[in-house]
Amino acid sequence: MSGYIQEDIDPEELAHRSELASSIAGSVRELIDATVRTEVGEADIAEARRLIEAATEILRRDQLPGAYGIRFNSDGTKRSWGNAILGRRNPIAPPVELHHESEFSWTEVELGAAYEGPAGLVHGGVLALILDQLLGSTAEFQGVPGMTGTLSVRYRSATPLGKIRGEARVDRVEGVKTFVTGTISSNGKVSAEAEGIFILPKWARGEVSDVLRKSVGEG
Amino acid sequence: MSGYIQEDIDPEELAHRSELASSIAGSVRELIDATVRTEVGEADIAEARRLIEAATEILRRDQLPGAYGIRFNSDGTKRSWGNAILGRRNPIAPPVELHHESEFSWTEVELGAAYEGPAGLVHGGVLALILDQLLGSTAEFQGVPGMTGTLSVRYRSATPLGKIRGEARVDRVEGVKTFVTGTISSNGKVSAEAEGIFILPKWARGEVSDVLRKSVGEG
Repeated sequence: MSGYIQEDIDPEELAHRSELASSIAGSVRELIDATVRTEVGEADIAEARRLIEAATEILRRDQLPGAYGIRFNSDGTKRSWGNAILGRRNPIAPPVELHHESEFSWTEVELGAAYEGPAGLVHGGVLALILDQLLGSTAEFQGVPGMTGTLSVRYRSATPLGKIRGEARVDRVEGVKTFVTGTISSNGKVSAEAEGIFILPKWARGEVSDVLRKSVGEG
Repeated sequence: MSGYIQEDIDPEELAHRSELASSIAGSVRELIDATVRTEVGEADIAEARRLIEAATEILRRDQLPGAYGIRFNSDGTKRSWGNAILGRRNPIAPPVELHHESEFSWTEVELGAAYEGPAGLVHGGVLALILDQLLGSTAEFQGVPGMTGTLSVRYRSATPLGKIRGEARVDRVEGVKTFVTGTISSNGKVSAEAEGIFILPKWARGEVSDVLRKSVGEG
């Protein structure tokens, strides 16, 4: 698969790159919030655009030909820095940080003005995006990794902009399919529920079987 | 409901504001893409950050206290300029532009590096976000407007980054519920299917009944 890149970088250099990626994306996230909420007039907009375009030109001096892809280090760690919801280098991503416990996975994230749908509320589709990623990563860490087969979200009540919590757990694994359920809550109240089925892609089935065999062998 | 703002602006001023909003958000969209794909080193990152922070400071000279909300003009037109997927003033939004025909609604949109999930592919959650908005707007324009009750997405195949097309139509309306189905396709092939149920919120039921009565009266 193109875009899956094996790239061995020593830990110190990797930490440095990670910090650079987070710092520039963090500055752009602030700018996004300021753009959604700005009330300044034409002259200020023009001046801000000149600065933004100058910054873009600097960043374009050396660019990847396409998207970031997924990169693996020799120690097996995976980098999804360009990911639309997790990516530390992607200013569109809050970014969501996932935590994997033994029985479940969770995240807590602050969603500001850029994630609005209905007035003052988180866009229902943004919650679906977070749930897709959270449930998919739960499948990967606690079941069998896979692409989303189906995702169903039931919205029980409105989710105000601000801090939300997501939680997910594997319900069951059936061969190449992992069934995961999850919730979004806001102020301690569940506002959305989801079910997802994640399916190990055909091209990865040999590879993952190898990994599973090796893990068992090493265990 | 807070954040739903009646705001009467004359058409010329509105067109001017719309253009300003699109221009600044467009510059930030370019910057987002450059950020995800940049390979420049520390000194360039530092210089770009200084420019971005200067731009943010200018835009923060006059800010909305919170999110953009939803604004209505006296002619009944609605502005969702802050919306996470439609908002012309929101750099996170591509933005998706929806078109409503007599029997269906559709959109075509180019999704770049910032919308990646699996390597080289559109994030499944981004497709869910687009489908939530597309199906919800279809309910609003061709059925009864409503908040998402449930959304189910079935992913049939991978969707490469690039141009996608979304289409949706109302299946049926049952009182306050509108049932909508839709698809995402890429290179002429359907890669995801969705079903959504959209429910008119209780607080809006009186209002919408009034509007429906008036429309009938005026028809």
